[in-house]
Amino acid sequence: MTEVLARLRSEFGTEQVLAGADAAPFECDWRRRAPGRALAVLRPRSVAEVQAMLRAATREGLALVPQGGNTGLVEGSTPDDSGRELVLSLRRLDRIRAISLVNATLCAEAGALLQPLQQACAAQGLLLPLSLAAEGSCTLGGNLATNAGGTQVLRWGNARDLCLGLEVVTADGGLWSDLDGLRKDHRGLNLRDLFIGSEGTLGVITAAVIKLQALPRSRLAAWLAVPDLPAAMQLLQSARMALGDGLSGFEAMSQASQQLLDSLPLPACPWALLVELSSHRTEAEARAEFEAWLALALAEGWAQDAVLAHNEAQAQALWALREAIPGAQTRAGGNLKHDIALPLDRIADFVAACEARIARAFAGARPVVFGHLGDGNLHFNVAPPPGQSLADFQAQEPALNALVFDCVAEFGGSFSAEHGIGRLRRAELAQRLDPLALDLMRRIKQALDPANRLNPGRVL
Amino acid sequence: MTEVLARLRSEFGTEQVLAGADAAPFECDWRRRAPGRALAVLRPRSVAEVQAMLRAATREGLALVPQGGNTGLVEGSTPDDSGRELVLSLRRLDRIRAISLVNATLCAEAGALLQPLQQACAAQGLLLPLSLAAEGSCTLGGNLATNAGGTQVLRWGNARDLCLGLEVVTADGGLWSDLDGLRKDHRGLNLRDLFIGSEGTLGVITAAVIKLQALPRSRLAAWLAVPDLPAAMQLLQSARMALGDGLSGFEAMSQASQQLLDSLPLPACPWALLVELSSHRTEAEARAEFEAWLALALAEGWAQDAVLAHNEAQAQALWALREAIPGAQTRAGGNLKHDIALPLDRIADFVAACEARIARAFAGARPVVFGHLGDGNLHFNVAPPPGQSLADFQAQEPALNALVFDCVAEFGGSFSAEHGIGRLRRAELAQRLDPLALDLMRRIKQALDPANRLNPGRVL
Repeated sequence: MTEVLARLRSEFGTEQVLAGADAAPFECDWRRRAPGRALAVLRPRSVAEVQAMLRAATREGLALVPQGGNTGLVEGSTPDDSGRELVLSLRRLDRIRAISLVNATLCAEAGALLQPLQQACAAQGLLLPLSLAAEGSCTLGGNLATNAGGTQVLRWGNARDLCLGLEVVTADGGLWSDLDGLRKDHRGLNLRDLFIGSEGTLGVITAAVIKLQALPRSRLAAWLAVPDLPAAMQLLQSARMALGDGLSGFEAMSQASQQLLDSLPLPACPWALLVELSSHRTEAEARAEFEAWLALALAEGWAQDAVLAHNEAQAQALWALREAIPGAQTRAGGNLKHDIALPLDRIADFVAACEARIARAFAGARPVVFGHLGDGNLHFNVAPPPGQSLADFQAQEPALNALVFDCVAEFGGSFSAEHGIGRLRRAELAQRLDPLALDLMRRIKQALDPANRLNPGRVL
Repeated sequence: MTEVLARLRSEFGTEQVLAGADAAPFECDWRRRAPGRALAVLRPRSVAEVQAMLRAATREGLALVPQGGNTGLVEGSTPDDSGRELVLSLRRLDRIRAISLVNATLCAEAGALLQPLQQACAAQGLLLPLSLAAEGSCTLGGNLATNAGGTQVLRWGNARDLCLGLEVVTADGGLWSDLDGLRKDHRGLNLRDLFIGSEGTLGVITAAVIKLQALPRSRLAAWLAVPDLPAAMQLLQSARMALGDGLSGFEAMSQASQQLLDSLPLPACPWALLVELSSHRTEAEARAEFEAWLALALAEGWAQDAVLAHNEAQAQALWALREAIPGAQTRAGGNLKHDIALPLDRIADFVAACEARIARAFAGARPVVFGHLGDGNLHFNVAPPPGQSLADFQAQEPALNALVFDCVAEFGGSFSAEHGIGRLRRAELAQRLDPLALDLMRRIKQALDPANRLNPGRVL
């Protein structure tokens, strides 16, 4: 292996080929579940260098693990512990290539961090409508490779829905570029949306064109106390009618997740909702519209109480509470996580059924449920019974996952909503997906990466 | 062949296997450019029958051409003239399986006509945001197979953007079903968006789940007289800011296309725009917002004159004018058609350059340009010089296409925006697409339809 390393360094330079301690930050996943060891971490400075590195991997017969900000939650972008995989870090490909006001598009490289991209667009009066907790450290390429979701999906869709085109290095080092920024384009089969969400198993995304929106003039947020999930779904339906496209956030937090927070705008209740309205109208106009809907919600009894933020700072404070939940969970001792999606018309019944089954099978275990309710996407996490350590509870993880995911399947849902498959959910995918679908996916993988060089053992 | 026909009839029944004169309506394309002859037209009544018919095609070694409403413009859904292809008409699979108010989804079969689906959703207060000229006779399956565009793309996207899931019969008769209606789902590679837009070459779509929206409370339309395309693009930018998501239509008609119409709301001008606002607010509120934007447009000189429809009937009359252009072209003697897309920031320069080149190379030829300007999608049609018949002009079609499509490529556009590839643009695709992209597409085709049984010779 030292010979391979020497050859890579001689071809690309020492700065571009990290090993040993320098490689460590790239070897362990965000949740520190799967510490790995790479033969080397490749850090290309250009698309041409990415191509050369893929050709080098082919020549050396080595597998390659593409990596963006390494904020993934499913062990999809870090090496295994064989010491034989190459990590390909895209972080140094971080240029904004263009922002077009007329075309309302951003063209940027895969390694660019999401938050600076949001800020660069906002400076031009444009909204990059992708927002997630990791935005300060995740990359555009990683967002696309995993079809990231987040808090703006309700209005703008997942990462895939925002993307007009890609630049991709293929398994054998070829370069496919589709960066014209067209809103309609029907030249043959749709490669773009196949690469998006493929978690680096079909090609390496090096750049993308993202569709931007006019920056909303006003953003308002309200915190609602809700008696139960059926009432929350009533609120969702009425908000769609009353606020139209202005409805840009519809987050839910169960009582257990509220109780993790230091201060709450309203006393803890069965479910709290964080509802956001983004409007191109003035704040006064948007506020009048939002207040009218809140009045209806209270009059109908769908909500028992509500607080509308009085200004942008208050709205941000409400969002900060919602976003504090993951960290608060960790501080409270951690839990076992399930990133699931349900049809909106079955989600209330699912939660009731699944919590009842957990209570029966894992006495004392505490569901901590929150998430993007408007998208049907819940982070259905389960904390150990009081007094039990997370490590002890983890021994029951396979049984708990089976219970939760069986229940998800029964209610027509997905065991993987926005976090991807990676290595963490690979066995689940193989076991739960329709064998025909798996077969089609494997044929596509075989067609585009016949030597199984790209992120092998992830996803499929 | 008569033996094959007899076997098919014995297996599926005479009613399900048309031949001879009964097959004629299925054999010729909408534009009557490519009359074909089928061995038989298969008309399944159920998904199981679709599967059996695909297995029969495999057994008989026959190719199969899926067909919806047969309204396609690129000869993609009709048989060639060999008399050896089977047409698979999906028209009898036309049930609405479900409309969910809470999930805001429609699940319908591929053969359902678009307009009745729109109406069924509207009756529930929901908008199916796909609208195109052929909506009275095109099918949902055809819309998805071609990733149809139309007049609502600006706000809601193409057919692909509206689809949450598919049911597909694979080349060997397998059934893949993904009809859970989830807004987030990351279970492996994205098969859905690969089947969408594949024009029946990878599988046969038998049903789909479509994401619906709240029906807008008010829809307003205005006709604007505009001096040139740069002014039109200024208007688009300002409309995005002023109307936000309410902006749901932004159509353009060149002077030549206006002159095809019997009556105009404003005297013919270099470019007319039809701008639509759809709002969840009351008509009075929406009207005030629209009028404020029109006042700005006139004050800035971007528009020289404007008419805002006073009621729904007037708005529909404006749309009827826009939609009368294709028929008016035919009555005026017809023309050669190009369905193209350009980046919004290059479209004005493209039109100027392309018209100048046509004037030089085809003296007297008359561009008749109109289309979905807000999406960068133009129907860039060219009528013969006065006195020349369309048939004579058609002799120059290859040279004209080369000129137009070369110019499109030069400005970073696509020679195929929303009509598909079929047989009509297949050679163009093979010639103009990046060989690497073609190679990737062919590998995918080979992976999913190794015997090349599904719509061979279309697209790839």
